[in-house]
Amino acid sequence: MTVAPGGKMIEEKYKHLAEAAVSMVEGIKRTGVKVAGLRDGYVKCIMPLDGNINHVGIMYAGSLFTLGEIMGGIMWGIMFDVEKFYPIVKEINIQFKRPAASDVSLEVTFNKDEADRIQKTAEKDGKADYSLELDLKDARGQTVSVVKGIWQIRKTPEELKAMLTISKA
Amino acid sequence: MTVAPGGKMIEEKYKHLAEAAVSMVEGIKRTGVKVAGLRDGYVKCIMPLDGNINHVGIMYAGSLFTLGEIMGGIMWGIMFDVEKFYPIVKEINIQFKRPAASDVSLEVTFNKDEADRIQKTAEKDGKADYSLELDLKDARGQTVSVVKGIWQIRKTPEELKAMLTISKA
Repeated sequence: MTVAPGGKMIEEKYKHLAEAAVSMVEGIKRTGVKVAGLRDGYVKCIMPLDGNINHVGIMYAGSLFTLGEIMGGIMWGIMFDVEKFYPIVKEINIQFKRPAASDVSLEVTFNKDEADRIQKTAEKDGKADYSLELDLKDARGQTVSVVKGIWQIRKTPEELKAMLTISKA
Repeated sequence: MTVAPGGKMIEEKYKHLAEAAVSMVEGIKRTGVKVAGLRDGYVKCIMPLDGNINHVGIMYAGSLFTLGEIMGGIMWGIMFDVEKFYPIVKEINIQFKRPAASDVSLEVTFNKDEADRIQKTAEKDGKADYSLELDLKDARGQTVSVVKGIWQIRKTPEELKAMLTISKA
């Protein structure tokens, strides 16, 4: 895995976002999910098995869901104009491929041209959908779950702006 | 809403299941989801808004997921032979229709003939899929999310039997 300029896994400008993404929402925070890498166009998150085990000793389905679902917000935070747009989630599909018996990681590389195209649509129409297909992997690199999600950016009403400027340090 | 014979919302024989369904898995327990009604062919669960709020004051997507996902296990617990079969989740799709700004409830009535047919298939093939389509509703009775899930019952290997006999008091 490559590292960010200066060797940092989390770029300085995204430190606040990396913290907010896993701590602002109580239901996310209590899973203990961590951002392990965050820089322009790239994110890596890890869901610990510890605290997320089900009744047969593998990772709970809902914790795998959370690991995938947070990517919509993180993509918004690093790929879109966070002052102008806020994100919502429209639909998530999760397939459980294999039992997850270790920490589970998710690395995503975002496409800048695609993000620019989506943002242009939102500038014009007030909103635009964006989708992600995500491979959640166990410690051996095997896919345990596949998450397909559809999110949407919408132009931020003035009254929401103060609540949503989380990606600025 | 009708109540169980004797006026009880949770039938005596399902008390243990009602407790286990929301407390055995830490990731479910920490949401605070409750079983409000449980009897032959019927269940009602409630996800409290308190403790499950996101950064814009509505219910977190993952908590809505949990409310839907637990139904696969509860259906197993009341509709199938829990000694012979154990459940796994294969795939969940969740659509977010409206912001959920209150507690969210989910009532499900199961079809006995359909469950018997599924169990017969599992007797024959060792496993059988079952699916549910679920309407999650806010305090005003409006659908906030629709969950479509596919689970599977499988014949329980001897070594798992001790872990999975949760629905017997």
